[in-house]
Amino acid sequence: MTVKIGVIGTGAIGSDHARRINQVLSGGKITALHDFYPASAESTKTRFAADAEIFASGEELINSPSVDAVLVTTTGATHEAYVLAAIAAGKPCFCEKPLATTAAAAKRIVAAEIAGGQRLVQVGFMRRYDEGYVALKQAVQTQTGAPIMVHAAHRNPTVPTSYNTPMAIHDTLIHEIDVFRWLLDDDYVSAMVTFPRRAARSHAQLRDPQIVTLKTAKGVVINTEIFVNCHYGYDIQCEVVGEDGIAKLPDPMAVSMRLAAKLQSPILTDWKDRFVASYDVELQDFLRAAARGTASGPTAWDGYMAAIASDACVTAQENEGQAIAINCPPRPALYA
Amino acid sequence: MTVKIGVIGTGAIGSDHARRINQVLSGGKITALHDFYPASAESTKTRFAADAEIFASGEELINSPSVDAVLVTTTGATHEAYVLAAIAAGKPCFCEKPLATTAAAAKRIVAAEIAGGQRLVQVGFMRRYDEGYVALKQAVQTQTGAPIMVHAAHRNPTVPTSYNTPMAIHDTLIHEIDVFRWLLDDDYVSAMVTFPRRAARSHAQLRDPQIVTLKTAKGVVINTEIFVNCHYGYDIQCEVVGEDGIAKLPDPMAVSMRLAAKLQSPILTDWKDRFVASYDVELQDFLRAAARGTASGPTAWDGYMAAIASDACVTAQENEGQAIAINCPPRPALYA
Amino acid sequence: MTVKIGVIGTGAIGSDHARRINQVLSGGKITALHDFYPASAESTKTRFAADAEIFASGEELINSPSVDAVLVTTTGATHEAYVLAAIAAGKPCFCEKPLATTAAAAKRIVAAEIAGGQRLVQVGFMRRYDEGYVALKQAVQTQTGAPIMVHAAHRNPTVPTSYNTPMAIHDTLIHEIDVFRWLLDDDYVSAMVTFPRRAARSHAQLRDPQIVTLKTAKGVVINTEIFVNCHYGYDIQCEVVGEDGIAKLPDPMAVSMRLAAKLQSPILTDWKDRFVASYDVELQDFLRAAARGTASGPTAWDGYMAAIASDACVTAQENEGQAIAINCPPRPALYA
Amino acid sequence: MTVKIGVIGTGAIGSDHARRINQVLSGGKITALHDFYPASAESTKTRFAADAEIFASGEELINSPSVDAVLVTTTGATHEAYVLAAIAAGKPCFCEKPLATTAAAAKRIVAAEIAGGQRLVQVGFMRRYDEGYVALKQAVQTQTGAPIMVHAAHRNPTVPTSYNTPMAIHDTLIHEIDVFRWLLDDDYVSAMVTFPRRAARSHAQLRDPQIVTLKTAKGVVINTEIFVNCHYGYDIQCEVVGEDGIAKLPDPMAVSMRLAAKLQSPILTDWKDRFVASYDVELQDFLRAAARGTASGPTAWDGYMAAIASDACVTAQENEGQAIAINCPPRPALYA
Repeated sequence: MTVKIGVIGTGAIGSDHARRINQVLSGGKITALHDFYPASAESTKTRFAADAEIFASGEELINSPSVDAVLVTTTGATHEAYVLAAIAAGKPCFCEKPLATTAAAAKRIVAAEIAGGQRLVQVGFMRRYDEGYVALKQAVQTQTGAPIMVHAAHRNPTVPTSYNTPMAIHDTLIHEIDVFRWLLDDDYVSAMVTFPRRAARSHAQLRDPQIVTLKTAKGVVINTEIFVNCHYGYDIQCEVVGEDGIAKLPDPMAVSMRLAAKLQSPILTDWKDRFVASYDVELQDFLRAAARGTASGPTAWDGYMAAIASDACVTAQENEGQAIAINCPPRPALYA
Repeated sequence: MTVKIGVIGTGAIGSDHARRINQVLSGGKITALHDFYPASAESTKTRFAADAEIFASGEELINSPSVDAVLVTTTGATHEAYVLAAIAAGKPCFCEKPLATTAAAAKRIVAAEIAGGQRLVQVGFMRRYDEGYVALKQAVQTQTGAPIMVHAAHRNPTVPTSYNTPMAIHDTLIHEIDVFRWLLDDDYVSAMVTFPRRAARSHAQLRDPQIVTLKTAKGVVINTEIFVNCHYGYDIQCEVVGEDGIAKLPDPMAVSMRLAAKLQSPILTDWKDRFVASYDVELQDFLRAAARGTASGPTAWDGYMAAIASDACVTAQENEGQAIAINCPPRPALYA
Repeated sequence: MTVKIGVIGTGAIGSDHARRINQVLSGGKITALHDFYPASAESTKTRFAADAEIFASGEELINSPSVDAVLVTTTGATHEAYVLAAIAAGKPCFCEKPLATTAAAAKRIVAAEIAGGQRLVQVGFMRRYDEGYVALKQAVQTQTGAPIMVHAAHRNPTVPTSYNTPMAIHDTLIHEIDVFRWLLDDDYVSAMVTFPRRAARSHAQLRDPQIVTLKTAKGVVINTEIFVNCHYGYDIQCEVVGEDGIAKLPDPMAVSMRLAAKLQSPILTDWKDRFVASYDVELQDFLRAAARGTASGPTAWDGYMAAIASDACVTAQENEGQAIAINCPPRPALYA
Repeated sequence: MTVKIGVIGTGAIGSDHARRINQVLSGGKITALHDFYPASAESTKTRFAADAEIFASGEELINSPSVDAVLVTTTGATHEAYVLAAIAAGKPCFCEKPLATTAAAAKRIVAAEIAGGQRLVQVGFMRRYDEGYVALKQAVQTQTGAPIMVHAAHRNPTVPTSYNTPMAIHDTLIHEIDVFRWLLDDDYVSAMVTFPRRAARSHAQLRDPQIVTLKTAKGVVINTEIFVNCHYGYDIQCEVVGEDGIAKLPDPMAVSMRLAAKLQSPILTDWKDRFVASYDVELQDFLRAAARGTASGPTAWDGYMAAIASDACVTAQENEGQAIAINCPPRPALYA
């Protein structure tokens, strides 16, 4: 069976997902496109989806019989309405992160999905599909003993001046927030932020770097350095300390060279290269589940939990050195 | 366009390629199957290709209008006939290595393809599609300066007692023989073999390990250790020494751990895991070229050159310490 | 010139230093020994210092004309009196850490040395002489740009049940407390402690592991994990994040092996092996300075500052999650 | 006891050894100096050995009652006479490599030492004292199983134009020739040389790089790349392949950095830095044995065996691709 896919939002990530489904992956076909800018949808059609129909609205696309499942890749503020519409239509829906821009909106999506009685939503937390994190999780489950601490870092070479302090949570740490819940099979109970002196390359609206300390229900302490003007490269580090030993997230594959008095291997500088392979895997997972009329991978509940934790982290930024409680409601049966 | 694919030979590799085309890759569909054992073809149909027709002979399959392109994944001795039939039918043909079991047979395939005037054959040298080798080649072309030496190793944990000394060339070194021609963009001029003492885990029909020294037309010396009872793992090593520096083939991605007084990371033990991702890439390349009615990647000429070099290496095994000449005929224009 | 050395306290470390001076290093000779247990001094004389005279008290030893310089390697509570006596006698004095068991006592030593007008005291913070830390400091000063954060770990495989929570500061973190002041050329302004859940191998008197967060006057944030039941080995980790990049303390030299499906290299398990070479270097430094009638290396002021910071860290342990201020008095000219 | 040392030859290495004995090591004192250029001896006396007497000839120095043991650090051609004189005087003698410039001369030294009935000569093969090789040897003896192959490289960034092809053996490979005999506890039976194309940075009198293949009596095959214009650094590589696994010589301690889109650590460029620590250890070993009136470490026999193997390697250079036999006489009882 070939799943007929409609894409709402054909910007960079939406058109790339269209390419992926039509040219790389198996089992799906782009049949429908919509964008706030019709020219954008036309461009995606021309480049990657000649057979797709262009719809005047996302709602029409969602409800069209030529669409089995939906990708929501618009700006974050519009996610809630499209995802709710897809749930209402009973169609599997892949929604890029964030699931919604507020915890309250995410909670409404969760409620709608529960009311429908089946999983339909996958949130685009692609790191869970990265082979490095998958291998790390296996090592943690089988080799290191139960986790006690995590030391992590999320570093960008630079950010534009429009990037401000809260974006270090909502745009950057959000990936760690989700992937550590999954890695540790745990929930957060508190967040605290520590600021060193501001880096010279930081700018007026941004306190960079910072260290976010998350505690989990099982008592794990997670320290994550966020340094978005680190200059040297895009670098994701993660080390899990368990009862018996330590496991470290692999660095990306790189050729080791002996050159110019240095043993050296390249570090990526563009975040888009770091998890590129995992986008293929996450969408293949979506296609497989959609063929069965359901969803797999990161849930709406995961999106909701990420929103709650993000809000607490921003509050913690505003109250340096104070532990801000994160109150997770009980997990509904649908997401057990 | 979806390329209709017929598979001749539905053993382990043939059925796995059928799965790949129907479940993983984009742009192809298995429409036809044949195996010497009809039950094998039926099994593949059941598992991976419900819509495929089973043919009573490879020749009928090749000539069926429901087949646009052919995968030849039978035992080596039958490759020549099927590949020649595909060329005669003007259909793109992916042939697992070896292209043929003798250099003379490979030469006949080359002659037929040249007579047809266009590339139709891709040989299954998957290492050229491995991201590690691709990155290594780029490093050699841009960073190390012109290559002068290559130090390599091909190690298996163990082999069955049916594995004899010449198989160390035909089944094992064959991959290095092809990939180093591609990596260096070069041809071989001689081969020599050196035998250390026999390893304790070797057996009667096998002198293991051995070191094969290949020289190229450009003057590069390549030393490859073949050690198929190395015990500790399946391990492929390659280091290129150039005018300005050295580049090393990356080891497979692995989680580094601190456990039990050791800094440690796993080494693969099963060869099937080592290049598993490259099979996807090579067949995707085949599908793309087949959609245009032609072939890409390793050519029939590459298969022929590998056969000539392999024969010289076996002669070199029989004459330890002597350099055996490898006489490559001039490269035909079709393969320029 | 050969410096005549008297050793007060001939336990494990004192007798090892005697061996070092008589059998390994150049420029010194053990001429005098004292221990609370005369049999211990006799044993050291027999094994490493046949020509040494045994004194009935440390004070007599310090004031003997056969002693040019003194090593104080007794239990911590007795350090103050011996060091003050050496200062009074105008003799160079190497004192094992801690300089004194209270900050007040360390302050008295500082005052006495200042009153004498010249440096006479070296404190046994041997890490400053470790070639790894020396190389790291050079990298930080020349390559990484100004430091912003330090991520560190101090891990022991196990500790006896007599080891309690404050000892994680006084016996373990004390080394980091000193070496980071030196590495960063900075002073501390606050300390905070975070406790994850207690490790299963911890015991009643000990909350293990813990994370100590130190802030410095220049705004550097230092996170140090202390995990003294980490099980897998004795492991010292340190990574400095600067404006331009990151430098990492080298792991000890180790043979990398490919064995049993693992790429592996040994991790030390006994702390005594980790900095063994630096003891030679620190005492050689002491001998060179003592030959000139003065002292080099870590000062009494460094010992005092370490005592102040340690006290704050213990208070921070008792007040989890609160930043405890560290008030460093201005640095006297003698230690500029 | 302090061993009174006379140094014959006060050039770079001789004066550095004088410094070492008087300023770094324990148990020796420089009492006598001689050099062909008296001003050189005076300079060494001024810098490192104020109490030493300057002798008009090496023979007088050797026979002086103020000398217990001798360092021979003159040019190679004069070694034989001085070493024979020291043996005749019954005094321990440390001789820098080569023991002699011909195998015949080395054989005469062996004969004289045997006639004297006790070991008096230590040859300056310092790599045996390098902590990396020591750890490698232990790994080979305890972890990898019996050795079968060695892959090695000896690379210099550049050499002067006076450095010619045979010097690649006598000045460069000589270290590997000795250290592999020791590492494997084995003797050589043949040598063969393979030349790739000449590197662009090589010069008229030098075929650079080259690969020397040595076979041992136990059947081990050793491939050593010699590349003295490798440009990127001074780099010594060695990997031993045994029945159960592989052990690799550690690279020198280096700070790993993340800088400028590279994970990088420095590679040495000056050979003098590579084994600097092992000079201390080898001379301390000499002093300890000399205090007992004998010698330790690399023997005159080792020097003789290295001379025989070197001669065969030069012959192999002149006969590319031919295995040149190395005939080792039986080992005398003194060197068992």
